[in-house]
Amino acid sequence: MKIGVLGPAGTFSEAAAELWLLSKAEKNEEGEEIKYYETIFGVSEGVLRGEVDCGIVPIENSLEGSVGETLDVLSSERENAETAEGEGEELRIVGEVLVPIKINLSLRTLLNLPKNLAEIKTVVSHPHALAQCKQFLREQLRGAKIKSVDSTASAAKLAAKDEKGRTAALASEEAARRYGLKIVAENVQDKESVTRFVVLSSSSLATETAPTGKDKTSVLIYLKDRPGALYEVLGEFARRGINLTKIESRPSRRAMGDYMFHIDCEGHLDEEAVRAALRGVEQRVATLKILGTYPVAK
Amino acid sequence: MKIGVLGPAGTFSEAAAELWLLSKAEKNEEGEEIKYYETIFGVSEGVLRGEVDCGIVPIENSLEGSVGETLDVLSSERENAETAEGEGEELRIVGEVLVPIKINLSLRTLLNLPKNLAEIKTVVSHPHALAQCKQFLREQLRGAKIKSVDSTASAAKLAAKDEKGRTAALASEEAARRYGLKIVAENVQDKESVTRFVVLSSSSLATETAPTGKDKTSVLIYLKDRPGALYEVLGEFARRGINLTKIESRPSRRAMGDYMFHIDCEGHLDEEAVRAALRGVEQRVATLKILGTYPVAK
Repeated sequence: MKIGVLGPAGTFSEAAAELWLLSKAEKNEEGEEIKYYETIFGVSEGVLRGEVDCGIVPIENSLEGSVGETLDVLSSERENAETAEGEGEELRIVGEVLVPIKINLSLRTLLNLPKNLAEIKTVVSHPHALAQCKQFLREQLRGAKIKSVDSTASAAKLAAKDEKGRTAALASEEAARRYGLKIVAENVQDKESVTRFVVLSSSSLATETAPTGKDKTSVLIYLKDRPGALYEVLGEFARRGINLTKIESRPSRRAMGDYMFHIDCEGHLDEEAVRAALRGVEQRVATLKILGTYPVAK
Repeated sequence: MKIGVLGPAGTFSEAAAELWLLSKAEKNEEGEEIKYYETIFGVSEGVLRGEVDCGIVPIENSLEGSVGETLDVLSSERENAETAEGEGEELRIVGEVLVPIKINLSLRTLLNLPKNLAEIKTVVSHPHALAQCKQFLREQLRGAKIKSVDSTASAAKLAAKDEKGRTAALASEEAARRYGLKIVAENVQDKESVTRFVVLSSSSLATETAPTGKDKTSVLIYLKDRPGALYEVLGEFARRGINLTKIESRPSRRAMGDYMFHIDCEGHLDEEAVRAALRGVEQRVATLKILGTYPVAK
């Protein structure tokens, strides 16, 4: 099994891929391979072109909200596709993974570890991770210089290059392990958060998972432009007692104030209530696209 | 009148402030002053502490979607406020401004301007602007090195330092003017977009604008956790023929899958239908906060 994720190695996306493999009980050291892409768009193109069996990308964080780029590749008509390969293929969501975001302060392993954090000269990380550890930085590392890089894994890589161990990275446990860093402070984020990742497959390869009793169906709708249209759509679900776990608007990219809606509802596409609701929705919208039906992450 | 915006000078936020002053017909060279803040959070704190009369911050772009930081300062309970000044004050939206995002390629004015774009060695801009001009860069500036900086205005500043004029900035017209750059290619973004800015005031200073016949009311709601709650809320508007111009979910920052909703509806708070709808909404939600009622931007 070949999985595409946002690189470099050691980011939370890699942790998501590991968790996904574990949940599928398909983890064996020989059979799996992770391929790293530079962007979420790159992962989605890799999936559509068949370079990987599936792709795992972040879709929302419990503090930061939705990842716009992921919502956009799910609704994209592939106007930007670089090649014509994989044409006619569409993305399907075949699963989800929840990853707790635990940020650690780590630095190069040395015989003479800094005796206290005040000896750290530079703290390096991704801007989001730096923002999530604001309080820790203020209280424990007031004198250190703060440096932004493009991922928490790049930060770990940079810390690994400082032979004196005076550069510390705010990064995942995976990143520390991969770059041989020692964790000197654990769980230093101001507030705990969880990132939800979705597992993407191409429409021709995606096999619908059987109902498990705890499933979710993701759809994308584009409304007809009239008052109350969204209300009527939600009514199709409410009337049948189907709970929505998420509703998110995204620009349609046509005009200011013109949106598409990403909706996740409880239930599997094989359940009659879900099918009936979606038939009702279809009558009330300009476009309905079913993105996937899959088990809820534990 | 003192206005707080996201700095540095020459960003699209400055253009928004100019447009706002024009629309208020209060523009006079003596009376106005623009104060620059490093972050959106900084602008909001400046407003609450009374450092400025109002603050103007981006809330959504027609291609990129919502600006999470702005939605978050509107819903914040000020847990992170650095000082106790302005305590008890809350943010109010008192207006909105639409700014067309026109990105130009500009470089230092010289007697010997590059005869063609191929002579440009480096293109510098904010990552968002670089992304919005991908096609232009690919077609016209294939050989140039691409460099990211923290704002389009910083990019213009950097281009102004290159005496040979071989560094070009992707930035606004305002930025080119401010840093003495010559625009060598106009409107080079792949697709036109518009950014909507909101004008923030503190609750004690905010005077409600009288109905103009074309107004908007912004509210923030936190639902009781039960199926169909959002549907019932939307029903309060739909039943009274009140159109929603925007609905956006944001994490409540309590748990994954727990959201607040930002809703904009047509109409002024002085209109009986709007007041009745909001009274109905209040019965159905855990929290309702009215963020403001103000004229729709032309």
